Amino acid sequence: MSIFPADSSGRTERARAAQEVHMRQLSGVDASFLHMEDSRMTGHVGGLIILDPSTAERPVDLETMKEYVAARIPALPPLRWRLAEVPLGIDLPYWYDDHDVDLDFHVRSLALPAPGNQQQLIEQVSRIHARPLDRAHPLWELYVIEGLEGGKVAIYTKLHHAAIDGKAGRMILSTLLSPDPSCPAPQPPAEMPASETRPSEMEMLTRGWMGLLGHPGKSVELMLKGAAEWQKSMQHFGYAALGEARTKMLDNPPVPAPRLSFNKSMTARRNWAYGTVPLSDVKKIKESLGCTINDVVMAICAGALRQWLLDHDELPEAPLRAMVPVSIRTAEQADTAGNQVSAMIAELPTHLTDPLARVEAVHASMSRAKEDFAALPAALLQEFAQFAAPAAAELVARTAASLRLADTVALPFNLVISNVPGPREPLYYAGALMEANYPVSMISDGMGLNITVQSYRDNMDFGLISCPELIPDLERIIDYIVAEAAALAAV
Amino acid sequence: MSIFPADSSGRTERARAAQEVHMRQLSGVDASFLHMEDSRMTGHVGGLIILDPSTAERPVDLETMKEYVAARIPALPPLRWRLAEVPLGIDLPYWYDDHDVDLDFHVRSLALPAPGNQQQLIEQVSRIHARPLDRAHPLWELYVIEGLEGGKVAIYTKLHHAAIDGKAGRMILSTLLSPDPSCPAPQPPAEMPASETRPSEMEMLTRGWMGLLGHPGKSVELMLKGAAEWQKSMQHFGYAALGEARTKMLDNPPVPAPRLSFNKSMTARRNWAYGTVPLSDVKKIKESLGCTINDVVMAICAGALRQWLLDHDELPEAPLRAMVPVSIRTAEQADTAGNQVSAMIAELPTHLTDPLARVEAVHASMSRAKEDFAALPAALLQEFAQFAAPAAAELVARTAASLRLADTVALPFNLVISNVPGPREPLYYAGALMEANYPVSMISDGMGLNITVQSYRDNMDFGLISCPELIPDLERIIDYIVAEAAALAAV
Repeated sequence: MSIFPADSSGRTERARAAQEVHMRQLSGVDASFLHMEDSRMTGHVGGLIILDPSTAERPVDLETMKEYVAARIPALPPLRWRLAEVPLGIDLPYWYDDHDVDLDFHVRSLALPAPGNQQQLIEQVSRIHARPLDRAHPLWELYVIEGLEGGKVAIYTKLHHAAIDGKAGRMILSTLLSPDPSCPAPQPPAEMPASETRPSEMEMLTRGWMGLLGHPGKSVELMLKGAAEWQKSMQHFGYAALGEARTKMLDNPPVPAPRLSFNKSMTARRNWAYGTVPLSDVKKIKESLGCTINDVVMAICAGALRQWLLDHDELPEAPLRAMVPVSIRTAEQADTAGNQVSAMIAELPTHLTDPLARVEAVHASMSRAKEDFAALPAALLQEFAQFAAPAAAELVARTAASLRLADTVALPFNLVISNVPGPREPLYYAGALMEANYPVSMISDGMGLNITVQSYRDNMDFGLISCPELIPDLERIIDYIVAEAAALAAV
Repeated sequence: MSIFPADSSGRTERARAAQEVHMRQLSGVDASFLHMEDSRMTGHVGGLIILDPSTAERPVDLETMKEYVAARIPALPPLRWRLAEVPLGIDLPYWYDDHDVDLDFHVRSLALPAPGNQQQLIEQVSRIHARPLDRAHPLWELYVIEGLEGGKVAIYTKLHHAAIDGKAGRMILSTLLSPDPSCPAPQPPAEMPASETRPSEMEMLTRGWMGLLGHPGKSVELMLKGAAEWQKSMQHFGYAALGEARTKMLDNPPVPAPRLSFNKSMTARRNWAYGTVPLSDVKKIKESLGCTINDVVMAICAGALRQWLLDHDELPEAPLRAMVPVSIRTAEQADTAGNQVSAMIAELPTHLTDPLARVEAVHASMSRAKEDFAALPAALLQEFAQFAAPAAAELVARTAASLRLADTVALPFNLVISNVPGPREPLYYAGALMEANYPVSMISDGMGLNITVQSYRDNMDFGLISCPELIPDLERIIDYIVAEAAALAAV
């Protein structure tokens, strides 16, 4: 299934001209999400949307979803980008725009066996999410999952972080979802760029050598192996904010985080858990205690993790430390692509027994962490980047790894907690009401737990990801999160 | 879900003693199925069984299948073997017996969305089959696929060829399947060997060095790269029959096969197609023409491929050449493990227009090919090894590749056709009648089509595998196979 009708007349010439215009080189940060991938680590992020198909005129199935995506993909360049790697790895790879995206490959379907419960959905999503994307195609997949209890349909999407930064992620969601249940397909742009031909190996090699001539030191750095070298090249290619944060970390060695059972090397497997907390409960706590919504989310996580650590007889005396991704995008950068994210490290008061004291302690800890970012406009700290969040998580984790290697500094944090404000109004996917939107994020060695939260309508949707060898009972943490929120709201 | 109840008393000592007895090193041929794996090539074989659950007392679902497999796995050592690779790759890897097989990992389920037709089943099986097995676990997976039209259930199994030779494959099938629909679970052996502990990296390294001392030239050969070197080491480690065949090939350079569109490099994707031909039709042709069942199978394939090649305007003047795996296991070798297989190369008379003339030509070609194996007992040529078949295919393909590399000899064959006689009596899987048993085999670069046939009850079940970039319309070939069989039977 091709997106655009074939245009046999003069296409080669047009494609060649277009190639000059549209081919784009990945930044060092974007490429890092490709380079990090190995037999255990993947560089993609995902999301699971629960739909109520009863509001849609047509069934939500494989065929209607292919039509729906086909109508929107002209407005979604990152879903058409194919990777062209430079032979011998002498330069950063390029994207080229391919209009012959094979939707039969990208859009897939399966069903849950009866009864189609939450545990079965979790097993399927965990298994699909653990698998790497195929680099011979644009780096995304979409699964229509039928057979859920109550006649619901789930849509799992997997997008590679090398192609999807925060801006692109929001654009994709806002293009695929509509506040209008009748969801007319967007008109394709009047002037569609011609499809680009895949550059030959020789062309890519030539580009690579040309790039080398321009940056003689670049390839040497790229070819250096090891975390310390990786980090040097990361700094070389920009990512200034993290570079500053790192300098600050070196000047003021961070308080080491207590080492927990999930702060270890992971396997290739993943497990995932999800749950929902009413936004009204969170707001009630926020208003009665005079803190932020994010403070409440962090305090809920602290209470849940405390209980889980007690269950496993490994509650440390010191508080846990959480990495919290924040956007550092300024107004001037609003239209630029690339990962404009950094991170704060905040204490999670798992050592405190009183739930209210935990909220106060989080509030104080977050205020201190924000002061470390005083040079940045305070308002920006509230704008959490949705899809970019794991980027910061990963980069900080890698930085931590390289610091450990270089300076034997201890683990700076135990887990990532990312809170992404989302839309309040109901959204529709092919006419079907979106009931929930659960994040499926990423973990890495030493950072075996990620909690990402997205608000939507009157709920906060939690998605937890780990590795079953590190946290076999991940669903217990989400149960404790839901219970902690209810307990705090009842105080 | 562990297979054996934990035995805390003295297990370490018993395990250590057992390790001396049960740890086994892979042969060079077995290990070759691991070494061949890369981002496009996998070393496993599969099968798809269609069950009628209406004959079973309990539903055929994930939970009953886990119980069923758990009851049988004590009698199936290869399903408990975990791989222990020797650090630095200085020696062949070992298997160790692990009784803590995690059936929650190995036994999985999914369903087809409605209507659950053949095309949907094919898409799921193709996708699952394309993915490599996880080497951190014993090298097998079993999927219960529900939601098929007519209330049927499919079981897809994936087994790594490094662990499963022909004998082991037949043993697994005969242990999992039963001619008795009430299928009592087999009694576990009175004396179960204790589970073996995974050897440490240091132990494996020590074993590797010890092995090196015994075979000083071995590691050097193993570390040599390239197909020619691989083939040398393959000969070094035995596989005498193929070695002889190769010598014969070098003495009498084989007739090159015409190069077709599917004799190219493949991608990581697979497509699969299946279909059934009535055994009565095949027997009718066999008896009226005085040939063998295998001759008829080959002639049916020749007719189908001729039509497909005509459709694609690439019918060569010369006949196609098919590699046909044969067992060379002697009566004395009946109890030995390892791949006792070789291969014949026979002409497929795709150049002949008359269906009956094609049967006669196949019969003559197969007779000539068998004469090349005159030194082997003729009766053995009929005993086709079921699971070992792709082993021969792969090894001959690799040999072909190395010959091309070394001597620029042309492609010796276009495809693999493997015909595996199976049981006539009905068999049951957890009480559910097995209706069909379709093979899901493997392909490799240059050998982009494999046709494997298994007989069962009154049918011959065909399974075709390719890569969608090489043969996008694979289902058309199976349609032509079914039509050719019907046409021949009607003559």
